[in-house]
Amino acid sequence: MLDQHGCKEARVPLLTRIRGPRDLDRLSPEQLDQLAAEIRTFLVDAVSKTGGHLGPNLGVVELTIALHRVFESPRDRVLWDTGHQSYVHKLLTGRQDFSRLKMKGGLSGYPARAESDHDVIENSHASTVLGWADGLAKANEVLGKDDHVVAVIGDGALTGGMAWEALNNIAAAKDRPLVIVVNDNERSYAPTIGGLANHLATLRTTDGYERFLAKGKDLLERTPVVGKPLYETLHGAKKGLKDFIAPQGMFEDLGLKYVGPIDGHDIEALESALQRAKRFGGPVIVHCLTEKGRGYQPALADEADRFHAVGKIHPDTGLPVSTSGLDWTSVFGEEMVALGKEREDIVAITAAMLQPVGLDKFAKAFPERVYDVGIAEQHAAVSAAGLATGGVHPVFAVYATFLNRAFDQVLMDVALHKCGVTFVLDRAGVTGTDGASHNGMWDMSILQVVPGLRIAAPRDADQVRAQLREAVAVEDAPTVVRFSKGAVGPAVQAVGRIGGMDVLREPSSAAVRPDVLLVSVGALAPMCLEIADLLDAQGISTTVVDPRWVKPVDEAMAPLAEKHRVVVTVEDNSRVGGVGSAISQALRDAGVDVPLRDFGIPPRFLDHASRGEVMTEIGLTAPDIARQVTGLVSKLDGRFEESRAAAEPVRD
Amino acid sequence: MLDQHGCKEARVPLLTRIRGPRDLDRLSPEQLDQLAAEIRTFLVDAVSKTGGHLGPNLGVVELTIALHRVFESPRDRVLWDTGHQSYVHKLLTGRQDFSRLKMKGGLSGYPARAESDHDVIENSHASTVLGWADGLAKANEVLGKDDHVVAVIGDGALTGGMAWEALNNIAAAKDRPLVIVVNDNERSYAPTIGGLANHLATLRTTDGYERFLAKGKDLLERTPVVGKPLYETLHGAKKGLKDFIAPQGMFEDLGLKYVGPIDGHDIEALESALQRAKRFGGPVIVHCLTEKGRGYQPALADEADRFHAVGKIHPDTGLPVSTSGLDWTSVFGEEMVALGKEREDIVAITAAMLQPVGLDKFAKAFPERVYDVGIAEQHAAVSAAGLATGGVHPVFAVYATFLNRAFDQVLMDVALHKCGVTFVLDRAGVTGTDGASHNGMWDMSILQVVPGLRIAAPRDADQVRAQLREAVAVEDAPTVVRFSKGAVGPAVQAVGRIGGMDVLREPSSAAVRPDVLLVSVGALAPMCLEIADLLDAQGISTTVVDPRWVKPVDEAMAPLAEKHRVVVTVEDNSRVGGVGSAISQALRDAGVDVPLRDFGIPPRFLDHASRGEVMTEIGLTAPDIARQVTGLVSKLDGRFEESRAAAEPVRD
Repeated sequence: MLDQHGCKEARVPLLTRIRGPRDLDRLSPEQLDQLAAEIRTFLVDAVSKTGGHLGPNLGVVELTIALHRVFESPRDRVLWDTGHQSYVHKLLTGRQDFSRLKMKGGLSGYPARAESDHDVIENSHASTVLGWADGLAKANEVLGKDDHVVAVIGDGALTGGMAWEALNNIAAAKDRPLVIVVNDNERSYAPTIGGLANHLATLRTTDGYERFLAKGKDLLERTPVVGKPLYETLHGAKKGLKDFIAPQGMFEDLGLKYVGPIDGHDIEALESALQRAKRFGGPVIVHCLTEKGRGYQPALADEADRFHAVGKIHPDTGLPVSTSGLDWTSVFGEEMVALGKEREDIVAITAAMLQPVGLDKFAKAFPERVYDVGIAEQHAAVSAAGLATGGVHPVFAVYATFLNRAFDQVLMDVALHKCGVTFVLDRAGVTGTDGASHNGMWDMSILQVVPGLRIAAPRDADQVRAQLREAVAVEDAPTVVRFSKGAVGPAVQAVGRIGGMDVLREPSSAAVRPDVLLVSVGALAPMCLEIADLLDAQGISTTVVDPRWVKPVDEAMAPLAEKHRVVVTVEDNSRVGGVGSAISQALRDAGVDVPLRDFGIPPRFLDHASRGEVMTEIGLTAPDIARQVTGLVSKLDGRFEESRAAAEPVRD
Repeated sequence: MLDQHGCKEARVPLLTRIRGPRDLDRLSPEQLDQLAAEIRTFLVDAVSKTGGHLGPNLGVVELTIALHRVFESPRDRVLWDTGHQSYVHKLLTGRQDFSRLKMKGGLSGYPARAESDHDVIENSHASTVLGWADGLAKANEVLGKDDHVVAVIGDGALTGGMAWEALNNIAAAKDRPLVIVVNDNERSYAPTIGGLANHLATLRTTDGYERFLAKGKDLLERTPVVGKPLYETLHGAKKGLKDFIAPQGMFEDLGLKYVGPIDGHDIEALESALQRAKRFGGPVIVHCLTEKGRGYQPALADEADRFHAVGKIHPDTGLPVSTSGLDWTSVFGEEMVALGKEREDIVAITAAMLQPVGLDKFAKAFPERVYDVGIAEQHAAVSAAGLATGGVHPVFAVYATFLNRAFDQVLMDVALHKCGVTFVLDRAGVTGTDGASHNGMWDMSILQVVPGLRIAAPRDADQVRAQLREAVAVEDAPTVVRFSKGAVGPAVQAVGRIGGMDVLREPSSAAVRPDVLLVSVGALAPMCLEIADLLDAQGISTTVVDPRWVKPVDEAMAPLAEKHRVVVTVEDNSRVGGVGSAISQALRDAGVDVPLRDFGIPPRFLDHASRGEVMTEIGLTAPDIARQVTGLVSKLDGRFEESRAAAEPVRD
C-alpha cells in the first residue's frame, strides 16, 4: 500500500518469498536492506488495519533479520522478552498472513508454540527472557548439546527484578554459552527510568556516536513515511563504528562479556557482533541501539509511547480510525485528579504504564506525587507499604494480570503490616485479543487469601468514583478496586440496599420465598439484569444484588441467601477460589446450605479472540447462564415434589 | 554464663543498663567494646537455650551499636532485611528478656511492631528492605520531614530481584536521602552465589585488607569461645583502614554513592562511615564486612551455614541438645538421590537453601545437576520452565511460604507453557515459632487457580517417596509435592482405594448411607483418624479418605460424597480457596448438594507459638473438629425430623 512512499517499484518483492530463516542466507546486503524496507511497509499496512504493537516491531526489523541469519532457529533458541516485538520474527518464520492478527483463529500478538516451532515464550509478562535463557542453556549443558540460546530483552524490561536475578545467575557460569541482546530504545512502554537507564545512557554515549545518530534522525525527519531507510545512511559509516566499544560498566562488574553498543539498524554490524557473541563460549551481552517506531513518522513524532500498541489507524497519518467513548481507565484517572486536589497525602504509583493506567493526568497535576518505578511490580507494592507506613496513601494502578508479580508483597508487606495501600486493577476480567497472559482473571481468587484486604468491583463509572473514594479512606488495610478494559457501560441504578450491598432488582413476583439470589460482580451487572429478565420469563423470581465490596463477603449475604431457594454468582474472574467460592464458604460458615452455582471463567488459559467471543466460548452470557439456572431450579422443583411424594428416612 | 571465657569479671555490666538507644550515647569506646562482648555472651547463652538465629546476630553486634548511636530510632527508621538479625537491635531497644524467644507470648524471632516502635518490617521474606526504605524516604519527602531512613541488607539478599528493582529506583532520585548498609558476610544462608557475589568480592579485596582480616581470624581461632574480642584487635588498626576506599563498581554505575568497605566489627570506623552517609543528602551505600557467627568458635567452624539458625544447643560446644527422628525433608532428600541415579534428566534447584530443603545429598551425588540460584525464587521458577522446555525435569525445592514470590512465574511461565516442573514445598502448613510469615498456609489456595497444575499432599514418608515419583513422571504440566516441617509421623496404611484416593477408614456401622465423608489432607491423616474415632463414639459413621492428589479434585469424589450425609474437609492451609473450597466447587459442579464443612487455617496472620499451640488456638484439633461435626450432624437430624413431620411446599 505504501510502496509509493519511497521504495523503488521496479524491485522484485522479497518478503513474500521468505518461507523460513534459511531463505535469508542467500540474500545480498542490498537485498537485506530491501527486505527490511518491505517489512516496515508490511507492518504499517497490516497493523494499521488490525491494531497491534507497531512501534516495538518497527524498531527490531534489522535486528530480527540479523538474528535469523546468524543463528539457526529452531535448533538454536531465539527468545523474545514480553513477545510483542515478534512480528518480524513471525514474518521470517513462515507466518505472513496478518489479516486476523490477534483475532480468533488468526495469528497471536505474541509468540505461540501452536503457531511455530520457532516460538518458545508465549506469555506477555516482561523481564522473563533471561530466566528462560538460563534454563535452556543449562538444559543444553546437561544434555551435552551445543545449540545456542539467544535472548532479546529491551532496556525497559531490564528494570524488572527477574532480569537481575537471571543476570546474576548467568554471570556465575563463565563457560555456559548464552547470548543476551539488549534492545536498547531507551523505553519500556514509556522512556525507561531509574539508575539502570542512566547507566545505559553512559554506555550509549560518545559524542561522535550521538552526533551520528542525530544526523540520521534529521535525515529521517526530512523523509516521508518509510522513506529511504535510515539504516542505509548509517550503513556507510559502520566501519567507523565497528571498533567503538563503550565502557563495559556494570555488566562486566557482574562478570558478563560486553559487546557494543551496536547500531541496531545496521544489519552487517549486527551480524558481525552476533557472530562474535556466538563464538564467545560464555555469557555475553550485545548492546544494540534501536529506535522504537523506526521508519514511521507518526510513531516517531509521538514522544509518549512511540505507537507502542495501536488500535486500527490510518496508515499515513497514524490517527485512530475510530474513537471510543468514556472508558473505565479515564473515569479512574479523572477521579484521581479530584482526590489529589482534596488530599495532599495521596500519591500514585505506576510500573512503567503511566498513560495506559490513566495516571497521566494525575502526574501532570501533581508531578511530585507520582512514582513510575519501571517494570517492577514487586517494588511498586513494597515501596507502597513503605509509603503508607511513612504516612501517605499510595494508589498503585496496574493491569490486573501484572499484580500477580507482586502477590507476595501484597500479602507479606502490605497486608501483614496493615498498610493503607490502594491497588487499582485495570483490564480486570476477560480482555480478549492479547491472549492468555493478558486476561485479568486471577486477582479476585488469589487476593481472597490475603487477610484484611478488601476488594471493590465497581459496576459502572459512578461506582468507580465512589468505591475509589471508599478505598482510599481505609488506612489500616489494603484495598483493591478492580474494573474492566475499555468502554464503561451505562449507569446501573440500585433499587435498594441490604447491608453494604446494592439491590439491582427485586423479585417480580410476591412469592414468600423467591427462587434465585443472583449475585452480580462488577461490570457484569447489565448481564445479570438480563439473566433476571430471562428467568422472569420462565416464572423464576429473582433478586439481583451487587455486593460492591466482594471481599469480605457482606454480613447480610447469608441471611439474604437463606430467603432464596438457590444462589447464583456471576463473575468475570476464574471460577476457582473466586467470589462465588468465597460466598459459598460464607454460607457454609453460617450454616446456610442453600444450593449455590458459581459462574465465572473456567480454570484454563484462554486463546486470543475478542472479549465477546471469549465470553461466548466460556458460557459467560446471559442466555447460557439463564438456561443453566432454569435447569437447576427445575431440578430442585423435581426433588421437592419427589421428596414430598415419598419421604423415606435416609438414616435409621 | 560464659563470663569466664574472657570478659574481665571486675567490669560493671553494661547491657542490663541499656534501656534504649540513647543510653548508648554516653558510653566510651572501651565501654562500647565491653558492651559488644556482653551482647555476644548474652546471645550465645540465650539462644542456646531457646534456639534461634545465632550466627547472623553474632555478626552484627558492632554494626547495630553503631547504627543506634548515629541514628535516632524510632524517628529515624532503622530497617532490617529479613529480620532474623534483629536480636541485637532488640537488646538495645528495651527488650532483654529472651527467655521465651519465638515462644507463645515471648519475643518474636523477627522485628514486631507490637513489641516496639523501633520495629518496622515484620516479615521474614528476604530482599524487601530497600523497597520499604524507598517508600519511607519518599513519604518523608512528600511530608517535608528530614528524618533518616537506613536499610540494612545482607549481600545474600541482594541477589533477590526486589533489591535490584529498589536500587534502580533509589538511584534515580539523587537528592532523596537514604542510607543502605550492605552487611556483607559473603553469605545468604549459605555462601552467596552469582555474579554479584563475585563483584562484591572484587570490592572487598586489597591484599592488605585481606591479610589483615586473616590475621584477625587466626587470632580468634586461638582464643576460646567469646574470648578477647577480635574487634579490640582490629580496633587498633582502624586508622589505617579509614581511607581505604575500594572501586565503587556497579553501585556507582547505577548512580549510588559508595562508601567502603568498612570493617563491620570496628564501631568507630562504622560510626564514622555512617555519619558521612547520614550527611550525604542522597542515596548512599555503606559496604560493611562482617563475619557471620563472629566470636563463637562452633559457629565459625561450621562452614555450611555458620549456625544460621539453631535449635537448643550446648553453649560451649554448639552441639544440639536433642536430636529428632526422621523428618519430611530427609525423606525427600534421600528419594531425590535415588531418583537422580535412575534418571539422568532430573535436576534440582534451590534458592540459597540447599541444606534446609534437603538437597545437599543430591548436590553431593550430582554436583552438575543442582542449581543454587541465590535468594531468587522468581528465577528458580522461570529457569525451571526453561530447563523443562530444554528437555530435563527440574525439581525446585523451596519453603512453601517462599513460593509466593514466584506465583506469576508458576502460572505464566511454567503452567501456561505446560512445563514438566516439580515444586517441592517444604515447611507447608503451620510452622509455628517463626511467626506469621513463615507459615506455609497459602500454597494450596493460590495454586488452585493455576490451570493444569497438580498438587500432591503426602500423608507420610512412604507417600512422600511415592508421590514425588508420580510427580516427576508428569512431563506436560507442573506438579507440586507439599509436606510439613519437622518429624514425619508413623505410616498410615490405606484400607482401600476409590478412584485415585486412599481410603484410610471405612465406616464402622453398616448404614446404607454413612454420615460423614471426612477428607484428610496430607500430614493431618492421624488427626483425621482420631476425629473418626471420636465421631464413632457418638454413633456417627465416618469414611476417611486421603485424596493424595488434592488438585485436581478426584473424579470419584462427587459420587463418593453423594453417598454420605455431610462432607468434612480438614487441611493444614488457609480455609480460603483451599482444598475444601475446591471440593465444594467440584460437588456443586456435579450437582451434589451435600452439605460440606471445611476446616483449615482461618484467614488471618498467626502469631508465633509452637505448632501445637497454634493448631489449638485455631481449632485444628481432633476434639474441636469432632465436636463441630457432631453438632452439624445433630442439626441435620433435627432438620430431617422436622421436615418429615410437617412437609410444606416452599414454592407454590
